[in-house]
Amino acid sequence: MSTENQKMKKIVIALDAMGGDHGVESVIPGAAMALKARPNLEFILFGSEIAIFRELEKFPQLKKCSVIHHTNHAISSTDKPSDALRKGKESSMRLAIDSVAQGRASSVVSSGNTGALMAMAKLVLKVLPGVQRPAIASKIPSVNGCSVMLDLGANISCDSENLAQFAILGSVFARAVMNVDRPTVGLLNVGSEQMKGNDVLRAADGLLRSVSIPGDYKGFVEGDDITTGKVDVIVTDGFTGNVALKTAEGVGKFFKNVIIEEFKHSVFSKIGYLFNMWVFKRIKNRMDPREYNGGLFLGLRGICVKSHGGADAYAFSRAVIVAADMVENGFNETVIREVEEFAEAEASLGITAEGLA
Amino acid sequence: MSTENQKMKKIVIALDAMGGDHGVESVIPGAAMALKARPNLEFILFGSEIAIFRELEKFPQLKKCSVIHHTNHAISSTDKPSDALRKGKESSMRLAIDSVAQGRASSVVSSGNTGALMAMAKLVLKVLPGVQRPAIASKIPSVNGCSVMLDLGANISCDSENLAQFAILGSVFARAVMNVDRPTVGLLNVGSEQMKGNDVLRAADGLLRSVSIPGDYKGFVEGDDITTGKVDVIVTDGFTGNVALKTAEGVGKFFKNVIIEEFKHSVFSKIGYLFNMWVFKRIKNRMDPREYNGGLFLGLRGICVKSHGGADAYAFSRAVIVAADMVENGFNETVIREVEEFAEAEASLGITAEGLA
Repeated sequence: MSTENQKMKKIVIALDAMGGDHGVESVIPGAAMALKARPNLEFILFGSEIAIFRELEKFPQLKKCSVIHHTNHAISSTDKPSDALRKGKESSMRLAIDSVAQGRASSVVSSGNTGALMAMAKLVLKVLPGVQRPAIASKIPSVNGCSVMLDLGANISCDSENLAQFAILGSVFARAVMNVDRPTVGLLNVGSEQMKGNDVLRAADGLLRSVSIPGDYKGFVEGDDITTGKVDVIVTDGFTGNVALKTAEGVGKFFKNVIIEEFKHSVFSKIGYLFNMWVFKRIKNRMDPREYNGGLFLGLRGICVKSHGGADAYAFSRAVIVAADMVENGFNETVIREVEEFAEAEASLGITAEGLA
Repeated sequence: MSTENQKMKKIVIALDAMGGDHGVESVIPGAAMALKARPNLEFILFGSEIAIFRELEKFPQLKKCSVIHHTNHAISSTDKPSDALRKGKESSMRLAIDSVAQGRASSVVSSGNTGALMAMAKLVLKVLPGVQRPAIASKIPSVNGCSVMLDLGANISCDSENLAQFAILGSVFARAVMNVDRPTVGLLNVGSEQMKGNDVLRAADGLLRSVSIPGDYKGFVEGDDITTGKVDVIVTDGFTGNVALKTAEGVGKFFKNVIIEEFKHSVFSKIGYLFNMWVFKRIKNRMDPREYNGGLFLGLRGICVKSHGGADAYAFSRAVIVAADMVENGFNETVIREVEEFAEAEASLGITAEGLA
């Protein structure tokens, strides 16, 4: 029964109620959905009291588990990160992050401005002990279900140590959130042979082959392996990861549009679509980007999840549940331990930043 | 009538008849298809005389326009580029490239080993005057029809001058093959703002803004712009381009598999598929990868097109037609002129490799 009790331990999540395209209209119903799935959640809702209260009235169960922290200030999607840092101290986003730093909440979820959220989270929460650079990760749909890819844009250039640490962050995430006991890890490259790529990649490959991580390192993977599910964790620098993720999103949209266009093409094709609507619904459900909502800022002293700006209630609830899973399964505690073990193993093998001694 | 005569000038193309998964069985029928579309083509077919002859018997029209150059040697898909260079001097691939260097053919098309083809083509054909580095390009389907992206893997890292030259190569290609009078050009980055990316990208952006190229430079584009057709030419280094292209291919396959799986799911969905088969055929035609077959080695003294290893006859014919278009529209002559003009403009503006003086 102790495990049951532990599982049911209350988890307090700070929500930026003003973030994203829909603000309270997706955040509040999204929180309500997440609460239905995870009755041990509690929320602190940051934003305009009137707006939050009006929406909260519709969800009596959520109301019971929520506290409102009023502020009239909000970061807009066009604010520069530097401006947000300077002028946004009373914003719903900043106050939500502050509440994590103060220990009032375990994690924060926001659909607001990505750059501002990253800048504030780094400044306020700071980096976990032993972690060199925080990274942005996301779940990616694949043939086998899903993978996690990182970094997606926090670090334009990375050294081999950074990449090795991302492999640890990604592996711990796959264990904590995707329930993969022993995640497989690949390093994104232009070929699978060991001589491929650049010096940084080859050094990271050497490092990951010499020192054990909380996953099984499988060597280099290529762009088309991202969706085959060849590995659970895809590690890359923030430049390549960002281009790959956006390319994948673009191709997905392109496919969808071609299918819609062709089925709208004539009366006959429209009838054909109606006839097969239920199959298309199944396809749509399998590819539903809402299931993969949540850019994860990994490596900070506090869980921070960036929900998509256009997220609806369901998508937002998915991001909240990822945050809850990370807290519940001790993501940050495991990262600290694993990063420390990795550093010790490196030291005992005499590995320096320049490679094997 | 002189234009008509010029258009009908004979074009001799060297074909590696032994390359790819299907060898003569896709090369010969593919050449026959290309000949039907372009009656001014002539071919030199490199490979096993017996195998070529047997297949050629089926295409009397092609037989009239073809010469066989016999060799029993072929490069295999597993040969390393270095081994191919040393031991492959009598191979069908090498002899086909040699024929371009000797001026017997205007261009070469091969479905063989990419690494070997690139290594041999660089060694034998050499780089065009003024061109720093050859690049691999490919047509990519987009909402507007198609774009061209380069480099796709020839140069793992690039400096800003290399990228600016790729912009020229891509623009001249779009004009010569895609019939775009004034192609738009974008530099692949993680955001569209001028401060995004790394030093090399920002320097290339500055260069392309100061010196005119045979296209309209539009600044930075992102991964999801590749398929929206925002620009006709997408410029990137070989690492990023390779990852982006393979990611896009992977997502395409993933989508296709999900659709097939769901329509095969039950008797009802199978009937639904039959009912809509013609719509799926239209969708398939629009996305047909065979239309985009042909990796183009741009910047060499001779046109060299790498057809996909698994290319069937139709796909191979598309690669042959791209080669013919490049020859017919004076791709290399234009590149030489444009690269020279760019260098002169740079010099007159006092731009050095370190940026604006």
